Amino acid sequence: MKKGIISDDFRKKLHVIIYEADTPAGRFFDLALLFVIIISIVAVMLESVTSIRLLHGKELAVTEWIITILFTLEYIARIVALKKPLNYIFSFYGIIDLLSTLPKYIDVLFPGLGFLISIRALRLLRVFRILKLSQFVGASNQLLTALQKSRVKIAVFLFTVVILCIILGTLMFIIEGPESGFTNIPVSIYWTIVTLTTVGFGDITPVTPLGQFVSVIIMIMGYGIIAVPTGLVTAQFIQERSENSNTQVCPNCNADHHKDNANYCYNCGHHLHN
Amino acid sequence: MKKGIISDDFRKKLHVIIYEADTPAGRFFDLALLFVIIISIVAVMLESVTSIRLLHGKELAVTEWIITILFTLEYIARIVALKKPLNYIFSFYGIIDLLSTLPKYIDVLFPGLGFLISIRALRLLRVFRILKLSQFVGASNQLLTALQKSRVKIAVFLFTVVILCIILGTLMFIIEGPESGFTNIPVSIYWTIVTLTTVGFGDITPVTPLGQFVSVIIMIMGYGIIAVPTGLVTAQFIQERSENSNTQVCPNCNADHHKDNANYCYNCGHHLHN
Amino acid sequence: MKKGIISDDFRKKLHVIIYEADTPAGRFFDLALLFVIIISIVAVMLESVTSIRLLHGKELAVTEWIITILFTLEYIARIVALKKPLNYIFSFYGIIDLLSTLPKYIDVLFPGLGFLISIRALRLLRVFRILKLSQFVGASNQLLTALQKSRVKIAVFLFTVVILCIILGTLMFIIEGPESGFTNIPVSIYWTIVTLTTVGFGDITPVTPLGQFVSVIIMIMGYGIIAVPTGLVTAQFIQERSENSNTQVCPNCNADHHKDNANYCYNCGHHLHN
Amino acid sequence: MKKGIISDDFRKKLHVIIYEADTPAGRFFDLALLFVIIISIVAVMLESVTSIRLLHGKELAVTEWIITILFTLEYIARIVALKKPLNYIFSFYGIIDLLSTLPKYIDVLFPGLGFLISIRALRLLRVFRILKLSQFVGASNQLLTALQKSRVKIAVFLFTVVILCIILGTLMFIIEGPESGFTNIPVSIYWTIVTLTTVGFGDITPVTPLGQFVSVIIMIMGYGIIAVPTGLVTAQFIQERSENSNTQVCPNCNADHHKDNANYCYNCGHHLHN
Repeated sequence: MKKGIISDDFRKKLHVIIYEADTPAGRFFDLALLFVIIISIVAVMLESVTSIRLLHGKELAVTEWIITILFTLEYIARIVALKKPLNYIFSFYGIIDLLSTLPKYIDVLFPGLGFLISIRALRLLRVFRILKLSQFVGASNQLLTALQKSRVKIAVFLFTVVILCIILGTLMFIIEGPESGFTNIPVSIYWTIVTLTTVGFGDITPVTPLGQFVSVIIMIMGYGIIAVPTGLVTAQFIQERSENSNTQVCPNCNADHHKDNANYCYNCGHHLHN
Repeated sequence: MKKGIISDDFRKKLHVIIYEADTPAGRFFDLALLFVIIISIVAVMLESVTSIRLLHGKELAVTEWIITILFTLEYIARIVALKKPLNYIFSFYGIIDLLSTLPKYIDVLFPGLGFLISIRALRLLRVFRILKLSQFVGASNQLLTALQKSRVKIAVFLFTVVILCIILGTLMFIIEGPESGFTNIPVSIYWTIVTLTTVGFGDITPVTPLGQFVSVIIMIMGYGIIAVPTGLVTAQFIQERSENSNTQVCPNCNADHHKDNANYCYNCGHHLHN
Repeated sequence: MKKGIISDDFRKKLHVIIYEADTPAGRFFDLALLFVIIISIVAVMLESVTSIRLLHGKELAVTEWIITILFTLEYIARIVALKKPLNYIFSFYGIIDLLSTLPKYIDVLFPGLGFLISIRALRLLRVFRILKLSQFVGASNQLLTALQKSRVKIAVFLFTVVILCIILGTLMFIIEGPESGFTNIPVSIYWTIVTLTTVGFGDITPVTPLGQFVSVIIMIMGYGIIAVPTGLVTAQFIQERSENSNTQVCPNCNADHHKDNANYCYNCGHHLHN
Repeated sequence: MKKGIISDDFRKKLHVIIYEADTPAGRFFDLALLFVIIISIVAVMLESVTSIRLLHGKELAVTEWIITILFTLEYIARIVALKKPLNYIFSFYGIIDLLSTLPKYIDVLFPGLGFLISIRALRLLRVFRILKLSQFVGASNQLLTALQKSRVKIAVFLFTVVILCIILGTLMFIIEGPESGFTNIPVSIYWTIVTLTTVGFGDITPVTPLGQFVSVIIMIMGYGIIAVPTGLVTAQFIQERSENSNTQVCPNCNADHHKDNANYCYNCGHHLHN
């Protein structure tokens, strides 16, 4: 039925505007969307400030309705522009788009759920899709690649840290006890992580000499083992760089990632002309 | 006598299940054990939360008795499965297994010692033995090797930091005195370490201008010297990587530092025999 | 007209003193200026301390007037010494010089604006111009180059961190609510950044178990992702170093990466012509 | 006169014991001294704890007199053991030795100066002289060399950070004012350094939205620029390693620090036999 109403021509034009970011119309659409998203987040933020809500509640409500309508139109347009819209609807961005549009409607029906509007902050993630088109893509990819290649080691590291925090947190609970704020083991583990990561809120602090001694060991450990993720990522970055520096491709076998000073292809032995 | 009761065949089967993690039965046993350990730790944690203990104390007590019986059976099985069980009994894991099984029994005899059950958190360390079989082993080993190779330098560094903290802590005690919370030298040293490691609880803070000036110097030192462990570990990681890469030398032109997957010398194009 | 009053000879001499730092007179002028700037900043600092202002207010006022007159004379001299003074007047340093001279005069006319004198702290930036002449220039340039070359990646990183903080800050506002100090979304975002950067003031702390759990995730993230800027800058520094080292290639065997002070090829012993 | 009393033979023996750490007697003397120093510091620490001083004041006083006498004897022995003792008396360690011996005597004459005894903590620095003989010397030297070679860059960095903190501290004083705890500019600068170094005590925290916004910028800066010292030191460590790895010395011209894969001396072109 839908197919009957919307002409293929119109769908194509919509598709160009909404999904093809390298056309002028697409670029404009993306920037306009980014602008509306930022406005919508600023509005949600301002509404959470009691004094502003009391003074300008009406203006904020109007703004939010306008944004909700714009988001609704965008959501419909995104579905209409695709021949097979299910892929979009159940994609990550599709679900976020829906979730950031619905809260205002839900709020009319079930007034207590207005806080759901905060989900809108997730729409900021769309910025990355918009940035994909810019010079940032290379930098982002290199960062991601470096992190992904170190991910097993980082996982082992984080796992060790978590076990360590469970053991040390339990120890601190036994040493300090509920009187010093270490009311139970989960709270003690929370405190241990606060301390090991060198955040140190100070909402809970050890008061017994033994507790302070164990704290000191936790702190020095935290101060030292931060070297591990840093070292892993740095080593990965350095390797990435040296591998990416020679951009030549072998004319014979198509191999790339040659060494900087390579004269011959490492794969087929073909001579490379610098 | 034991030998008479337990057949060698049964012992062998038990050994396969308990100690050989690369068989299906062994793998299942390890995962089941891991599951029980996690349940036991969650139970200990929940029991430490007063409100939960008051509501579900009975269920938690039952769970802990079941876990204690399971751990007891496991401990007996581990001993039975070995011809010479003394190695296990006095090994690191053997002692932890015993210590995490006993507390519940001790609690019946001497009620005041129930807190010993927290020792169970140490059982989490067994996770590493289970992980030994997975892909994590390589990553863990590389991390450990890097840390071990830097250990003399890290020891020198930590030693310097500790001496520094003793001297600066004493200085802060003289400057600030008991009125500002620097009640004695050990507490001042505790504060100095809290500050130098950039944790900064804020339970004790300098109030005199001179004390604040010295604090500023301690902070900047702490901010700067964190570079030392980080630099050591990073340099070690980078060296590990380059050592693990291709150590071949071209038989024709003597060039080295070939790529891992090189078939031909990058310098002269000579064929490399792997 | 000006040209008529001030002889070219006098202007040249002034120029040598004020702008040419590598002459004895210029060097003396720079150091004297630096001394006056430091005195002026110390005076502003001391005046902000209530107890000192009450005791030595008169002396400080006199000092500040003397400094203001010196700065006025310097500003006039700088303009006079140049044939085309507009470049200086609208340069970064020209504007700072004017802004740090004016406040005292403005204070006479409009007494409420005395705090503008704090702008003087910006004059400290002139230190960098004075240092330009010293051995520090190389080090500064290398630092700046390394930071500039990593700037796209650092921007992507900071951008990701900010989006993350907006999303996590909103989440913490929903979880904790105004009772725990998370009074509105902007404050929650402020708290998230305080936590992610491992500063951890402790003025606002989560009190609900779920809030503490999310905090723990934020802290571990903050503890881990500090590796990214560190890794980027370190990789850049290392590349700078290797690029600044010897770029010569042996004319006989094509080997590169010679030592800085190499006379002979390390690979074939051929003489290298520098 | 002294020469008449003390025989050259006795002086030589004393010298071997006190100054030559690689003989058995010297080694024993060093370890005994280290033991006494640690005891003396523990005694000073314990005396600063009010509850312990009240209970065991007498025992501590006796211990301190014994230590003072031992230090006095050591100081005299050190002077006697040298033919020209002035070098020692006015050396760094000589002055510390004197300063850590005198306080107890001064305390008898002028009771109010008892706190001077804390100077004894400086004696711990002697540990480094004792360690000089062990395997730690290489590690310490490498750390020191790396730090020294980066020292100009680290100085430029610290200098920039200090100027930044003065400017940002003044800004925060203007924004927040005395009501929020930013009572004067020096205190605001102290707060800025506490925040930039990610220590974050929380004794002073911004309360105005603008102040929190500037704080957020300070924190992110602090989180980011820690990369600079880390990067500098890491790059230096990596260079040290690659330079120190080949320990060969050219048999012809005595040049060292050859490249790992060197076949010929970089300095004279002589063939190196691996």
